[in-house]
Amino acid sequence: VNAEILTIGDEVVRGEIVDSNKSFLAERLRTVDIECHYQVSVRDDPADMTDAFRLAVSRSDVVLVSGGLGPTRDDLTASVLASTFGRELLLDEASLETIRGFFGRIGRPMAENNAKQAYFPEAADVLLNPIGTAPGFMIEEAETLIFCLPGVPRELARMMDEQVLPRLTARGVLGEASVVRTELLRTFGTGESTLDAELADLARGDGVDLGFRTAFPDNYLRPVARAKTAEEAEAKLAELVEAIRERLGPVIYGTGEDPLEAVVGGLLAERQQTIAVAESCTGGLLAQKLTAVPGASSYFLGGVVAYANEVKVGMLGVPEADLDAHGAVSDPVAIAMAEGVRSRFGSDFGVATTGISGPTGGTETKPVGLVHVAICWPGGSRSEGFVFPLDRERHRVLTVQLALDWVRRAMLGYALEGPTLMRKKGSAPPPTTTGAGV
Amino acid sequence: VNAEILTIGDEVVRGEIVDSNKSFLAERLRTVDIECHYQVSVRDDPADMTDAFRLAVSRSDVVLVSGGLGPTRDDLTASVLASTFGRELLLDEASLETIRGFFGRIGRPMAENNAKQAYFPEAADVLLNPIGTAPGFMIEEAETLIFCLPGVPRELARMMDEQVLPRLTARGVLGEASVVRTELLRTFGTGESTLDAELADLARGDGVDLGFRTAFPDNYLRPVARAKTAEEAEAKLAELVEAIRERLGPVIYGTGEDPLEAVVGGLLAERQQTIAVAESCTGGLLAQKLTAVPGASSYFLGGVVAYANEVKVGMLGVPEADLDAHGAVSDPVAIAMAEGVRSRFGSDFGVATTGISGPTGGTETKPVGLVHVAICWPGGSRSEGFVFPLDRERHRVLTVQLALDWVRRAMLGYALEGPTLMRKKGSAPPPTTTGAGV
Repeated sequence: VNAEILTIGDEVVRGEIVDSNKSFLAERLRTVDIECHYQVSVRDDPADMTDAFRLAVSRSDVVLVSGGLGPTRDDLTASVLASTFGRELLLDEASLETIRGFFGRIGRPMAENNAKQAYFPEAADVLLNPIGTAPGFMIEEAETLIFCLPGVPRELARMMDEQVLPRLTARGVLGEASVVRTELLRTFGTGESTLDAELADLARGDGVDLGFRTAFPDNYLRPVARAKTAEEAEAKLAELVEAIRERLGPVIYGTGEDPLEAVVGGLLAERQQTIAVAESCTGGLLAQKLTAVPGASSYFLGGVVAYANEVKVGMLGVPEADLDAHGAVSDPVAIAMAEGVRSRFGSDFGVATTGISGPTGGTETKPVGLVHVAICWPGGSRSEGFVFPLDRERHRVLTVQLALDWVRRAMLGYALEGPTLMRKKGSAPPPTTTGAGV
Repeated sequence: VNAEILTIGDEVVRGEIVDSNKSFLAERLRTVDIECHYQVSVRDDPADMTDAFRLAVSRSDVVLVSGGLGPTRDDLTASVLASTFGRELLLDEASLETIRGFFGRIGRPMAENNAKQAYFPEAADVLLNPIGTAPGFMIEEAETLIFCLPGVPRELARMMDEQVLPRLTARGVLGEASVVRTELLRTFGTGESTLDAELADLARGDGVDLGFRTAFPDNYLRPVARAKTAEEAEAKLAELVEAIRERLGPVIYGTGEDPLEAVVGGLLAERQQTIAVAESCTGGLLAQKLTAVPGASSYFLGGVVAYANEVKVGMLGVPEADLDAHGAVSDPVAIAMAEGVRSRFGSDFGVATTGISGPTGGTETKPVGLVHVAICWPGGSRSEGFVFPLDRERHRVLTVQLALDWVRRAMLGYALEGPTLMRKKGSAPPPTTTGAGV
């Protein structure tokens, strides 16, 4: 099965926005084992749209269209699709009522031009939009299924999962082994090529497959199982996931949509433990990640961004002697920061970062990229230095992810390890540095 | 002039990465007044690539290709382009030497397969890549100019500006009025439709144009001037920019690539003043933004993320009586936080945020979205409450931008205003809420 993604809109083609809908849709198609072959974007121009629709139907089994369903003059998807394939544009009374109801709920009158959104090409199957005014629709043309979705990312995402994927499954587009089950496993600390080598033999044929995706500093695994029945697919998937987990152990920090800070927050909330952070080189990023999770106030007490040495002394109680003897970027200072913030805030966990994110500020013995991370908790304390040869932004991002991972590992009783592709302070560079994940 | 952008790579088409190259290239084309009509992505598949090259040449004057120039088997751009248009693939000795030199500089031997990157279709014009191993190239086919660039974003960006745009200008692709000058003006606080209405009459015909782009919470303006000579184009651009600045005044916070935190940092550094921040609802984001700017240690002393009330009292000296009488989200507490962090850190500026970013935590009198921002500096102090009806993430982002903008305005002697599309606490909702920028 051969899919194509077509997004419509001047703002996309002119580069006024980065279109993340295409990668989202392609990734979701892969969860039902449909491979996207083409991604195309055209302007809100009837001639260009017609050409694009014709080409897509001539070469693809499934076409996902996003954009052009709004109420304005520029929104032409339904009318151009109708004229391209010689269909009438018909009013769907039920959709008109739904749109009217939507405006009723938000307490505004429906503008006249919103009525346009209730017109669809003849024989269209309307797709509900529970969170916006633009319904989508599906038509079948020359054995190609064309799904039209709104361009608003959260509406598109919800309709893809609730309306499109079930229809693809129901119509048997996936062939005989048509039930697909999949899961996203989130990993941190091991490079993509290492993961690939360690897992290569697990996902060979027999309806199972293993995909990789990198989003610095994480690597995601996407095991997929396909079978004739749901029971069989679920059993296959469970077996594959179990085998992966056995090999990777604590490298897998979570599943699905939750980032590491949400996993850490969930563990803290569950155990009714609290955390406070002391940041030098990460400059507030660690606190910001932790507080990005809704409900963080139940476990996150606060933090100190101690950029200046006087702040490390005055606000965190770091001994001036340690700063003088070892410098700000050192294990003794990192530990004193973590202990200082923990005792002053009265938290269970204290975490600290101090380093040289660059681009300047390095010396012969303390190069740009050096960072020390420390953690103190009821079970102990730990500090270690690393050299991350990355630009300022990635240096901070990786440092924060490592600090969060140590909190998770400390709570679960795992060893506190650094990323395998990165270098511990004083050691030789690692053998390989391929891939964007670490 | 009609342009098309073609990106090549399985990882793009499958949705493993969000392809920001396309929007970057389209936006850069607009700076020389070339409109992109099509964006296409195909896999590393010779047949699909051939079809895409043929279609692009048949309908576009300029084609920008990204990806497929690497050293691996999957990298097929040069060889498929050559075979599509019946050209030989020829070794360019100078490029081979350059690639060898690149590896020499980073102290590694050149792998055999890197030699592949020195082969180009007959009659290609090689485009230097000063920061990577993959040179690009240009060929002309049936009056269409095809530029091939590497997929690595920073290499592509640099080569677009240094190699592609000058060639487009030199070849007279832009017609008679071929000298283009442009500038990016960054604004905060005024909605896109308001900006459009205020400036609509300024950029009408006569070789001047005004583009808009929104990147929450900012809006960018892109004045463009075109003329027969550089002198004339520069004069036209200067006149247009001057007219825009006269109307918008302090709403324009900067130009070019520098975000607001860099502008604020530059002003602080220039005046040798310092800043410290006290954050509740923004949870470290304000500190993180300020410290994302290289060299921030010369003016950023540090911050306190005071999530828990005890931290507001203990670390910042907020009077318990204020917390009891007014609650944590109030002007008296915001001011006490800003004054507290300023006096404890000994900084010139103290800035504080306290609010309810949601999704829960609101009450009848203090709804989700309420936020108080405060600033204390040698020239005075100020606090104000706003209601931002946005999701948690955008609420934090907008609050931080407002706080940074107040620091800028305070330093430059402008009034401290909030975003025009947002609501002050206690006032009625604003009349319009269109557009993503505020």
